[in-house]
Amino acid sequence: MKIVIAPDSFKGSLTAVEAAQAIERGVAKAVQDAKTVIVPVADGGEGTMESLVAATNGRMVEETVKGPLLDSVQAAYGILGDKDTCVIEIAIASGICLIDSDKLNPMAATTFGTGQLIKKALDDGYRKFILAIGGSATNDGGIGMLQALGMKLLDIHNQTVGYGGAELSRIVQIDDRDFDPRIAQCEFLIASDVQNPLIGKDGASHVFGPQKGATPEMVEVLDKNLTHWANLVEEKTGIQLHDKPGAGAAGGIGGAFQAFFPSKTRRGIDIVIEYSKLEEHLADAECVFTGEGQIDFQTASGKTPMGVAEAGKKKGIPVFALAGSVGQGIDVLYEYGITSVTSIVNSPMTLQEAMTRGAALLEQTAEQVMRTYLAAIKK
Amino acid sequence: MKIVIAPDSFKGSLTAVEAAQAIERGVAKAVQDAKTVIVPVADGGEGTMESLVAATNGRMVEETVKGPLLDSVQAAYGILGDKDTCVIEIAIASGICLIDSDKLNPMAATTFGTGQLIKKALDDGYRKFILAIGGSATNDGGIGMLQALGMKLLDIHNQTVGYGGAELSRIVQIDDRDFDPRIAQCEFLIASDVQNPLIGKDGASHVFGPQKGATPEMVEVLDKNLTHWANLVEEKTGIQLHDKPGAGAAGGIGGAFQAFFPSKTRRGIDIVIEYSKLEEHLADAECVFTGEGQIDFQTASGKTPMGVAEAGKKKGIPVFALAGSVGQGIDVLYEYGITSVTSIVNSPMTLQEAMTRGAALLEQTAEQVMRTYLAAIKK
Repeated sequence: MKIVIAPDSFKGSLTAVEAAQAIERGVAKAVQDAKTVIVPVADGGEGTMESLVAATNGRMVEETVKGPLLDSVQAAYGILGDKDTCVIEIAIASGICLIDSDKLNPMAATTFGTGQLIKKALDDGYRKFILAIGGSATNDGGIGMLQALGMKLLDIHNQTVGYGGAELSRIVQIDDRDFDPRIAQCEFLIASDVQNPLIGKDGASHVFGPQKGATPEMVEVLDKNLTHWANLVEEKTGIQLHDKPGAGAAGGIGGAFQAFFPSKTRRGIDIVIEYSKLEEHLADAECVFTGEGQIDFQTASGKTPMGVAEAGKKKGIPVFALAGSVGQGIDVLYEYGITSVTSIVNSPMTLQEAMTRGAALLEQTAEQVMRTYLAAIKK
Repeated sequence: MKIVIAPDSFKGSLTAVEAAQAIERGVAKAVQDAKTVIVPVADGGEGTMESLVAATNGRMVEETVKGPLLDSVQAAYGILGDKDTCVIEIAIASGICLIDSDKLNPMAATTFGTGQLIKKALDDGYRKFILAIGGSATNDGGIGMLQALGMKLLDIHNQTVGYGGAELSRIVQIDDRDFDPRIAQCEFLIASDVQNPLIGKDGASHVFGPQKGATPEMVEVLDKNLTHWANLVEEKTGIQLHDKPGAGAAGGIGGAFQAFFPSKTRRGIDIVIEYSKLEEHLADAECVFTGEGQIDFQTASGKTPMGVAEAGKKKGIPVFALAGSVGQGIDVLYEYGITSVTSIVNSPMTLQEAMTRGAALLEQTAEQVMRTYLAAIKK
């Protein structure tokens, strides 16, 4: 009996890979002849690289780069099992999780390290990229990444400007003569669910700036700076990022990809499902497990379990969702293919205890769900 | 599709009947053509009367009696659906739950009210009794019950003694000339799992006295008093209660039944399962739900879900157990027929919250278990 195990991470407790392994142990206890296939999934945010690498039996390439505040960061990019596609996660080199919350500063934070990872992968010979751009600490319009790849952003004195959203206002000229020529030979697939434009009330600075540490005053400055940058980009390339959907993703790095990279954008979960070959794995499976820290009616809005559910529904197999916390309105999930939602919490306990015991709870719950399901088959 | 719903109570949250109704709502949401049969069960302790009456579509007869401390208590006895068998629960008239914990006093507490209930049922014409004797506040050897039924317990001045365990030492003579003669025409089935003797280290006073409020000094007095009582009973009847298994149940009322009533004792859960006709209900059922506040390895020791599991196993149908709290070692339950154990707690929360939301949580969990099970049938 083949059982596919495709959870997201349980944030604060388990990575997607760890969650999948815990479920696998539980399934193995319930099913003697279980053939389990682990396909950890993610929605394009943090953990996407690890999930895609694990799901395709790929590997990681480590590289030390500049972090969001120019400190040294041990980062990595992933190579998928096809040995051809590179996956780079902005959170790994330029992520909000790399900075103590009291040090967050989108005026200074740069995407430079992400550019360094791209350069390293280019040097290693790769030309196909998946960019997971969730979880950035930056609001720099992607100029750090461009700078790392040879783009010269010059000030009024013809000197290169520094890093971060504050420097955008000092740029008067974009000199792309040294911009890495290999970029033009590449395909960039941007994993992003964000449809926000670069500037304005719905833009990067107003919507995502505050969670990256921007004060109301900073938000105004950053939005003005991105407007100035959008004007320069339009002059240079003819591309109007100002109101372009998705240009505001990840502090404007979405716009940088649209203007300077051969790129396409797709929903994160769709990319993960395609590249992890989830549907192929499901073809002859008995059922599939998915899961996430919290599952509720909002899960219907493109979160990971929903992607797995849709894939399971296509194949006509049951989709068992496990969650740390089951919230309101899960009834709406059934029509998308979710068979049932079961909490891993097995008695009254604190959130901290549930997180600490996450792996054991997930294992036990997966076993019980499987035993419940099998009872009908054995009967 | 017929589904039997046979939970115990979820103590502090739901009676067995309320629990069954919550599970029924959940099952109905998952199964369009569900034909549900509610068989609330109990293990002979508190709730046994209500469960048996509900499971057999019987009725209650109310009667005001003397409580354990001689206060007035609104009590009741049950008549099963067969219109022939009476069920009397000691906890209803003489129970520990009727007394504030700081007022517990096994020197004074009496089983008189339980005797009054028996008398009322005799007056109403009943001759078949089930006595559920769990949850008593008393350590009186059952003399209160005997007194209510006409037994004269005389002191050295040929006066009747008072009530409670303290009075036992004052008895010098048992005069049964006015003991209700209808008792001899009855059958008493005592629901009890307790094997303790009347006196000694394993006897009623030492083992159960402390939880009924006995200080170490009281325990010694009560044990001495029960020894005196056992000697008198042996003189009178030839029956040696001293070391008799089960004589120490419910503060010695077990011994009173053995000495003065035509009685048999059986495991509470077995009586409940027989009289509720659980096995007949299971005959053509698809599956059965059971449940209890806490389920763990100890559940294997004759607790309610185990009785339901054994019945389900005999019929070869899945047994789904739901619990407020799933503890250690549930693996041992599988061999007894439990298919799976699922907690109703659906996110980190306090015990208090789980109890307050018990009905909704139980409903949701039953629905999810049923959906999981049905997925295999629909496939």
